[in-house]
Amino acid sequence: MTNAPLVPLIEYESASDEVRAVYDDIMQTRGTDWINNFWKVLAHDPMALKRTWEDAKQVMAPGALDPLTKELVYVAVSVTNGCEYCTYSHTAAARAKGMSDAQFMELLAVVGMANETNRLVNGLRPPVDPQFIPEHR
Amino acid sequence: MTNAPLVPLIEYESASDEVRAVYDDIMQTRGTDWINNFWKVLAHDPMALKRTWEDAKQVMAPGALDPLTKELVYVAVSVTNGCEYCTYSHTAAARAKGMSDAQFMELLAVVGMANETNRLVNGLRPPVDPQFIPEHR
Amino acid sequence: MTNAPLVPLIEYESASDEVRAVYDDIMQTRGTDWINNFWKVLAHDPMALKRTWEDAKQVMAPGALDPLTKELVYVAVSVTNGCEYCTYSHTAAARAKGMSDAQFMELLAVVGMANETNRLVNGLRPPVDPQFIPEHR
Amino acid sequence: MTNAPLVPLIEYESASDEVRAVYDDIMQTRGTDWINNFWKVLAHDPMALKRTWEDAKQVMAPGALDPLTKELVYVAVSVTNGCEYCTYSHTAAARAKGMSDAQFMELLAVVGMANETNRLVNGLRPPVDPQFIPEHR
Amino acid sequence: MTNAPLVPLIEYESASDEVRAVYDDIMQTRGTDWINNFWKVLAHDPMALKRTWEDAKQVMAPGALDPLTKELVYVAVSVTNGCEYCTYSHTAAARAKGMSDAQFMELLAVVGMANETNRLVNGLRPPVDPQFIPEHR
Amino acid sequence: MTNAPLVPLIEYESASDEVRAVYDDIMQTRGTDWINNFWKVLAHDPMALKRTWEDAKQVMAPGALDPLTKELVYVAVSVTNGCEYCTYSHTAAARAKGMSDAQFMELLAVVGMANETNRLVNGLRPPVDPQFIPEHR
Repeated sequence: MTNAPLVPLIEYESASDEVRAVYDDIMQTRGTDWINNFWKVLAHDPMALKRTWEDAKQVMAPGALDPLTKELVYVAVSVTNGCEYCTYSHTAAARAKGMSDAQFMELLAVVGMANETNRLVNGLRPPVDPQFIPEHR
Repeated sequence: MTNAPLVPLIEYESASDEVRAVYDDIMQTRGTDWINNFWKVLAHDPMALKRTWEDAKQVMAPGALDPLTKELVYVAVSVTNGCEYCTYSHTAAARAKGMSDAQFMELLAVVGMANETNRLVNGLRPPVDPQFIPEHR
Repeated sequence: MTNAPLVPLIEYESASDEVRAVYDDIMQTRGTDWINNFWKVLAHDPMALKRTWEDAKQVMAPGALDPLTKELVYVAVSVTNGCEYCTYSHTAAARAKGMSDAQFMELLAVVGMANETNRLVNGLRPPVDPQFIPEHR
Repeated sequence: MTNAPLVPLIEYESASDEVRAVYDDIMQTRGTDWINNFWKVLAHDPMALKRTWEDAKQVMAPGALDPLTKELVYVAVSVTNGCEYCTYSHTAAARAKGMSDAQFMELLAVVGMANETNRLVNGLRPPVDPQFIPEHR
Repeated sequence: MTNAPLVPLIEYESASDEVRAVYDDIMQTRGTDWINNFWKVLAHDPMALKRTWEDAKQVMAPGALDPLTKELVYVAVSVTNGCEYCTYSHTAAARAKGMSDAQFMELLAVVGMANETNRLVNGLRPPVDPQFIPEHR
Repeated sequence: MTNAPLVPLIEYESASDEVRAVYDDIMQTRGTDWINNFWKVLAHDPMALKRTWEDAKQVMAPGALDPLTKELVYVAVSVTNGCEYCTYSHTAAARAKGMSDAQFMELLAVVGMANETNRLVNGLRPPVDPQFIPEHR
């Protein structure tokens, strides 16, 4: 048994024009013909749907970092936080952008080790080395 | 006032041969002539020092992912967890591997957005779309 | 398949007098005729059951904050931590206290944004502005 | 000694027109004559500055929830995540919006208790009661 | 510069009778002649002070687990969450209850490794083995 | 419906010699005749499998802390992080090492309380008492 989402999914057919406009832009931008469930629940707040989608387009666009690297970072955060849906959806997105099996496994190794050493640091409390502090202070 | 670390820093001069061997390998591998405070506190458990360093060498080595990408992921995890020392040290490491200002800012934008949408998902609980589930099940 | 809880559910019928007394108080305080599963697993430690229930009654009682606001905060924390059971149970409790759909969606927007900017801060490490530090120091 | 931020603070005097426009809007919206350090570091990515500020204006505006309730939720998330800067800045914002000492202490009591019971649930793993699952499934 | 606490410290001399009674019980129970700052800030909500102290006495008392083991667990949680004050205070408490240097370092090694493998699991999403699910379902 | 893991399970029969050698060592060390799913997904990166298993053997071995105490700490971290698989697997491991029902319930009480007071501290921000800071600074 899967638990139900906390608000119903808003399907394209029953969506308002405002929501449909975002759905259309998502499908066009991604070159797909379906909308994933994250947007269908978020659509209960059309302003949040539009804001979050516009943000995602801007943040995930190619820039100083390439789209695959950004997607790997998204997976790293989702795995650290233990978000199941996000891990499935962003791993799929990363694979669509070319992530190989070997890259996925290395990514998780780094995520695991960072989570480990973050806690060694939290427990031992070493002072920040002056060499690590930017010179602009 | 900075709070003291929870165990004293073990400096090279007063380190055992076992610890010195790891310190030497750290400096040689990195091409530096100093040891940062993380290793100096971890050295209180020489087995942990050696294990963690050997792991780090293996995990952070160039492989399917390049060293800069791995370092960006390390920063992403450290920022998500709020580890101050780790954020300073791995940001410095990423810069040493070529991270630009623009890359740093884009990295944080992705980390921020992933942390945001992870919680939208946690609250709305959309079911995982079948399209995201690997076919091997 | 749902995974089993890590200890069996203690139903009213098979509960000790000590546990029943807490169950009775829960039902009377809430004006309901059933006990939710959280208390049924916690009942394996009757002292913990009683302590946690007494704490909850005190903490969630109307005071300087009204019960709905307290419930919204409970949801915000549960969503941030990714606790599934807690998100379902406290969202239901908030709805019972009058939370509207619009309030729920706005709540999640704030939770999402706070989680995002918490990480922008973790990564950029701005010093605390003196204006934000209480004058009593 | 306070550690330096990871990028320099961009002061109004040395800001670009694009950044100044956001700074001006922040000060006008808030009715203040200064910019806090969060925006001054974020300004290194003018697009992120503008996006985050526009989002904050939209998310924190009065709506189905009043501004004080939203600010309390912001504090609750920041405290749960352990973000020091965010706790100081949003506690100050909540006080400016009327949060009393008693409300602050009750807020923290709820945050503490939610964090506690989230983990009791994580450890005991009770199944979600059917009564808590919305009927729309 | 240390940032000030968000509420002033309530010293014994200026405390109400209600608060003093708790302070007296803390000192008597612990066999000390001073109160640490956690209680002095919590005292702004005398009901929270009393409730939290009574809970702590009950939860940390010798039982099926000995006091040192409980304190080690407290440190493990505080380190995982990155709570600085808690890490200093509960490490000191653990040392007072007999924790050796070697035990502290091994504790952190376990905490680090658990945080690492938690994320390997979050990323790989193995199904729970039937052998791990209690038979009472 | 259970979601599939993100990589297929590698069973003993289809494993490489390198992976089988680790599987054999796991079964021999534990005195069991089966491999749990965590290792079967991690085996996609044989180097990670070997490294993580060698680390686990070293970290979880009897030392200054006994194996049951280490397992309790592992459960405490997994519960704090909300890792479902880890909570089931390490609770089972702790029971196999002798953890009683009463010990499990007391463990969770400590974990819950530590998570609560960590947040009271995060919100109130008491300065670290000098008595808690080790004298070696």
